[in-house]
Amino acid sequence: MKVCEILSVGTELLLGDVVDTNAAWLSRGFREAGFSVLHRQTCGDNWGRLADSLRLALSRSDVVMVTGGLGPTYDDITREVTAEVLGLKLKSDPQVEEKLRGFFLRRGMKMSENNLRQAMVPEGAVVLENDWGTAPGLWVEEKDKTVILLPGVPREMKQLFCHRVLPRLKEISGLTLVTQIFKLYGISESALDQALGETMRASCNPTVAPYAGNGEVELHITASAQSTEEAEGMCEKMKEEILPVIRPFCYGREDENLEIALVRRFVKQGLTVATAESCTGGLISQRITSVPDSSRIFSLGICSYSEEQKMRLLGVKSETLKQEGVYSSACALEMARGVRSLAGSDVGIGVTGIAGPGGGNDRDPVGTVYIAVVTHEKEMVERFVFGHQNPTREEVRNQAASKALAMTMQSCDLFCQYP
Amino acid sequence: MKVCEILSVGTELLLGDVVDTNAAWLSRGFREAGFSVLHRQTCGDNWGRLADSLRLALSRSDVVMVTGGLGPTYDDITREVTAEVLGLKLKSDPQVEEKLRGFFLRRGMKMSENNLRQAMVPEGAVVLENDWGTAPGLWVEEKDKTVILLPGVPREMKQLFCHRVLPRLKEISGLTLVTQIFKLYGISESALDQALGETMRASCNPTVAPYAGNGEVELHITASAQSTEEAEGMCEKMKEEILPVIRPFCYGREDENLEIALVRRFVKQGLTVATAESCTGGLISQRITSVPDSSRIFSLGICSYSEEQKMRLLGVKSETLKQEGVYSSACALEMARGVRSLAGSDVGIGVTGIAGPGGGNDRDPVGTVYIAVVTHEKEMVERFVFGHQNPTREEVRNQAASKALAMTMQSCDLFCQYP
Repeated sequence: MKVCEILSVGTELLLGDVVDTNAAWLSRGFREAGFSVLHRQTCGDNWGRLADSLRLALSRSDVVMVTGGLGPTYDDITREVTAEVLGLKLKSDPQVEEKLRGFFLRRGMKMSENNLRQAMVPEGAVVLENDWGTAPGLWVEEKDKTVILLPGVPREMKQLFCHRVLPRLKEISGLTLVTQIFKLYGISESALDQALGETMRASCNPTVAPYAGNGEVELHITASAQSTEEAEGMCEKMKEEILPVIRPFCYGREDENLEIALVRRFVKQGLTVATAESCTGGLISQRITSVPDSSRIFSLGICSYSEEQKMRLLGVKSETLKQEGVYSSACALEMARGVRSLAGSDVGIGVTGIAGPGGGNDRDPVGTVYIAVVTHEKEMVERFVFGHQNPTREEVRNQAASKALAMTMQSCDLFCQYP
Repeated sequence: MKVCEILSVGTELLLGDVVDTNAAWLSRGFREAGFSVLHRQTCGDNWGRLADSLRLALSRSDVVMVTGGLGPTYDDITREVTAEVLGLKLKSDPQVEEKLRGFFLRRGMKMSENNLRQAMVPEGAVVLENDWGTAPGLWVEEKDKTVILLPGVPREMKQLFCHRVLPRLKEISGLTLVTQIFKLYGISESALDQALGETMRASCNPTVAPYAGNGEVELHITASAQSTEEAEGMCEKMKEEILPVIRPFCYGREDENLEIALVRRFVKQGLTVATAESCTGGLISQRITSVPDSSRIFSLGICSYSEEQKMRLLGVKSETLKQEGVYSSACALEMARGVRSLAGSDVGIGVTGIAGPGGGNDRDPVGTVYIAVVTHEKEMVERFVFGHQNPTREEVRNQAASKALAMTMQSCDLFCQYP
């Protein structure tokens, strides 16, 4: 397997002002193309150090992927340093130059001479046309090494990589990686690891790997083969073995998260939902409506922070608040019923609890949240304590919102839909 | 100034499964301690490559900061590789061992022998006691070089760095950096750069640097000196020069964002606010209620996705919807008035528009948003088109929410409160 090295360029990265998210994204891209990423360096916009880093990378890797430092300003020197290290002359590319002039003309902006530096290309290099910004990418082959230069702006870098770089890489490697991703909720990473057993965990091709984050777990099955079809077949076979273990927890695939899965299923079933939120403060409605097409399934969200609004708008009874308190199953249920009837929706969600940092007590510590989901045929309500010791407000709210979304799918028997 | 190098260890980083947020965070920490971070490497859990990376770092940097690979499993080898490269023997530290045994005993868990590897310490090294996890940090001085080992788990790493590492670093450097951060809204990074002028931009100590992100701009003034007081004085002097330029746009300081600034000012003035959101879908109420203490100023949020709910709950007139349409200044105004009166709050916010990806037209492309803010003495309403070409749903919603928060502070003359 050919070896790739990623070189992230930018003084802002070394200063810590910007987190380098490009490098991880590119690593996954190179894996998909059948390359091993064994080294990564981060370097400032400094001629000597950048040249040293590039020489080191060329001495140990087949492909060097450089991002950043292709812009028009004086501190963008990646193009020039690369040409020097490879011993190549730079000359202006007429097509790139014309495109640059057109870009500024269309925007009615004056182009400073500096911008023309973006049209400079090392002799023999392939220009990777940038339809998403001004600086083109460059693909330079010299002896048995390949150097790829892409802009550091994540949006441009990703488009250029997917459209201009990935197809070329797959041609070189002759290998292709296929990954199937399963999104799980309700099982911890370690419990999943245990449940998978030694055989699956020890498998090398395909690999089976759980990843945790944000209270959810993903399971990745990754196979490498000489064709996409072959790799897909290997993944499918492993999937059949794994499904009995993950089916109860698997709510989605690939890019789905809880809200995307919910919106898709509700659209398909023609169902609608409304939310009554207290401690989550609109987070659940925000997550649902972040999904395109959510207007077809979401009718109303009420964020009732005060007891008065809970009574007036949602019909929570004053006796309930007096006897059970605002943090109670009864209050969550009445909120869910109230918003369901107000909106005339199929499902109503009610959430009340203590997100912190203040407001906790012995009976109900910070992190205590009551979640109710009501449909025309059933009512679910449960008390949770989210977070470990001293959870942050953000942790409690995020976990409560995720649980509410999962319960909403469960209430309509739409949680486990895979395969 | 002494030179530091950061070495992030972990195969999961090179695979791209985890984004390395530690490195940027540590870079800022070293800056604060008066060190320059000139190099960063990322390395997998591989003996040969890790040893090479460490040797390279020692050849060019005074301090090498290594994170990751201190855990109990067989692939955690950072401790052993470091000892080998520095030519130091490892021996078990009785105090660390005792602490480990106590940790497992208290949790009623059996400790596997593997865990005892975490008690191994290179001869002469200082143990950095870990009160937030099991693996202690290590501080190793050898000849004129310092190697610091910390766990890769961000929570543990950060606590160990702040409590055990930073004080030692400041002692070594004899320098301290002070940074003042000004949060701006309503000016672009390039316009700010222009407005600051050459003198300020060229200043070396303190430095003056603008940073852009999420439609907002931060200005950092950073001074280094031998004492905190001296550095603070230098920042203050620069601030006086800069204030005339930034005052119209400066809504906050340091860790404040728009919602924190809004909640703090509204609490101070005893004001309350309510939201009526369509295209932002609860994002504004979610952002306001993410701030502790927001229950004192936030009474009600209505997320009215359907026209029917806009009329029924918020009192938007059916003629308005017929004549002006749901995407109109009139509709936004009636939403703001409606929720203000429903909630009995001082301020009402109304937002309606097209977040995309569908729904745009020639008159109102995707990104078109009408925002209204109503108080007892004034009404503001404005039409915006957010995002560049083909903005994402997320961009439009985030920018609309930020603008609504800024307008809300402006409506009460609470936007520019600094200094």
